[in-house]
Amino acid sequence: MPEIDANRLLKDLYAAREIGKYKTGVHRPTYSPQDVESRHWLAGRLADAGLEASIDGIGNVYGLDPRPGRKLLLGSHMETQNRAGWLDGVMGVIYGLEIARALGTGIDVAAWADEEGHFGSFIGSRSFCGLLTEQEMDVCSNRETGQSLRDALREAGFSGRARRLIDQARYRGYIEAHIEQGQELEDHHLRIGVVTAIVGSRRYRIEFKGQQNHAGTTRMAIRKDAGVALVKLAAAIEAAFPKIAGPRTVWTAGDIKLDPGAPSIVPGGAELVFQFRDTDPAILDALAAKLDELIVEANQGPCEVHIAYHSATEPAAMDAGFRAALTTAAQGRAPGLHQAMPSGAGHDAQILSHRLPSAMLFVPSIGGISHHYTENTRDADIVLGCQVMADACAALLEKV
Amino acid sequence: MPEIDANRLLKDLYAAREIGKYKTGVHRPTYSPQDVESRHWLAGRLADAGLEASIDGIGNVYGLDPRPGRKLLLGSHMETQNRAGWLDGVMGVIYGLEIARALGTGIDVAAWADEEGHFGSFIGSRSFCGLLTEQEMDVCSNRETGQSLRDALREAGFSGRARRLIDQARYRGYIEAHIEQGQELEDHHLRIGVVTAIVGSRRYRIEFKGQQNHAGTTRMAIRKDAGVALVKLAAAIEAAFPKIAGPRTVWTAGDIKLDPGAPSIVPGGAELVFQFRDTDPAILDALAAKLDELIVEANQGPCEVHIAYHSATEPAAMDAGFRAALTTAAQGRAPGLHQAMPSGAGHDAQILSHRLPSAMLFVPSIGGISHHYTENTRDADIVLGCQVMADACAALLEKV
Repeated sequence: MPEIDANRLLKDLYAAREIGKYKTGVHRPTYSPQDVESRHWLAGRLADAGLEASIDGIGNVYGLDPRPGRKLLLGSHMETQNRAGWLDGVMGVIYGLEIARALGTGIDVAAWADEEGHFGSFIGSRSFCGLLTEQEMDVCSNRETGQSLRDALREAGFSGRARRLIDQARYRGYIEAHIEQGQELEDHHLRIGVVTAIVGSRRYRIEFKGQQNHAGTTRMAIRKDAGVALVKLAAAIEAAFPKIAGPRTVWTAGDIKLDPGAPSIVPGGAELVFQFRDTDPAILDALAAKLDELIVEANQGPCEVHIAYHSATEPAAMDAGFRAALTTAAQGRAPGLHQAMPSGAGHDAQILSHRLPSAMLFVPSIGGISHHYTENTRDADIVLGCQVMADACAALLEKV
Repeated sequence: MPEIDANRLLKDLYAAREIGKYKTGVHRPTYSPQDVESRHWLAGRLADAGLEASIDGIGNVYGLDPRPGRKLLLGSHMETQNRAGWLDGVMGVIYGLEIARALGTGIDVAAWADEEGHFGSFIGSRSFCGLLTEQEMDVCSNRETGQSLRDALREAGFSGRARRLIDQARYRGYIEAHIEQGQELEDHHLRIGVVTAIVGSRRYRIEFKGQQNHAGTTRMAIRKDAGVALVKLAAAIEAAFPKIAGPRTVWTAGDIKLDPGAPSIVPGGAELVFQFRDTDPAILDALAAKLDELIVEANQGPCEVHIAYHSATEPAAMDAGFRAALTTAAQGRAPGLHQAMPSGAGHDAQILSHRLPSAMLFVPSIGGISHHYTENTRDADIVLGCQVMADACAALLEKV
């Protein structure tokens, strides 16, 4: 079995943490100076490891093994959410780097641009998989600043470069390691999660149109209160969904807005941002049908209710053979301290799974904290995760 | 009976409409240049009518009858909500001016500052009634711009002036005319409303504290979703209040905010702005007790729920003798086309009623529209309202 170098792994992770450091975490939004610096730093580390390092026209960083033979592709992402954790993304990238060093051959490493969605949805991995058009790139912009993707790439120094496309024949498959971002492993005193599937999601913005009026002089009987219509639908969802949901289904009303939102005005408009996720397409479909039914019922009231925006991603099953390799490796290094589990969050592996057998490995998040600068994982768990993944890679490459 | 001059009345109202004109309405926030201009214009019109005109240290405009004898005080307000209607407030003031002219003696006129609450709660009429302290004035500020009341008064040119205090012995009572701001008169094809009482209100800001988390990785069973707690309480209110409410009770959830309000984040905090109104203190108390009970129940869930802000105004009954005088006058000029009704909105008359017998008269609002630039009342109704009020004043002053 290959042995990883725990000190070398942690040293690289600590070094990456300094780039855009924020309190105990990192602030490294996609294509920010800090993010660009981290990509150049990574390219340097990949080159030091004997890989052919490059950054392409979407900002993806690659370290390619120049030797012949089929490869495993290992990767994740460098950028972070705002003022977020130090391991979310970069841990999976540095695992790739360390495993490339430990195994000597057979490993390519990639850092996908913008997994965190500052400019779009998985634009880095979709670009590599041939799933991102130039037309879509023309209309992507920063969700906070409004800066266009084209301008951001120009400022970052990446525009004008070709975007690398996947060579499917080159790869045995793709593996991504990530922090769990939940507290299931911790709650069960486990150290490794082998992902069964990445959830699919349905996302909605539901609009309610009533009639704005004076809150003192408008009698209840004649009101068309958009806020009340929203509250009733949201409560109906909370009552209905548990009867249909699977054991792992999650649903979230992440935002509510009333218009005009003043104490003494009956709201004339309202908006509900709602989503749900599961690994089972049948459950997603059943929940979507129930939501449609509840919206039809809501329209029996005095307000108009309609879906203003809707998007869907399908669940992505992880490769059975790769899962078996990860499970065997986990059992070897941490007997009984691992489990199979879905990923409730989206990851680049769901994109890569369209092109390659793909798999994911989770390590525990302390307290389940994610997307916050206090996110953390014990050093021993970081090291164990990398060793398990290295063992699985060696097995899949028939190096053992 | 005194006869008012309909053309003179409408001409003054049209003139006032030009000051801060916005589309078919008016934008004249308290102490804005337009509001200050309107106060000086009014003082001029009051002086032209032979009244002693002045503006005091809170911006109240007075026109006092210099002749001996007990007076009736007639008034309302000059400022408007933002981009609001042309009659809301100023109509009652110009009624006072016209009735002073029509009756010759016995009428004082007042325009109270900031009934619309840009800086506080009824600060003009409360100042006159001795219910506004210097300490409260020190902390009042503009709810939109944050400008302090003291700075606003300085800019308006009113600071340093004394604030006039009521001389209760001078007055027989107070009458205020106003647009209805609802559509009850119109729905019943009526032309005059005689107000029985001004509703009392209870106003709340209710805070919900849960735990912010990732919407994909946090299982439903362990969530502390502040938004769900809010939705459940708001739905419980909607279910419970109709069973306790009187026929005229109104309740309104005017605003809802989720924190952080992002699609993929379980809300860690939430806020509900809620109020209810009725003329019956027993109903207000019963609703308040039910709300307290629902909040106790809400705290059985995973989130903390508490009242962060609470204020109350008590219902203000209108004087029976004044109501009778208004009803007799309405029957004389518009037989069968008037009704007794509560005021669902707050008015300066509820403050004056602490010091003087007080009454209010409503004229219809077309389509019930209020606090919007399309607010309007038919000219014939404007004229009728003023004539009815003039008749009632003459009767109360024993001039008939």
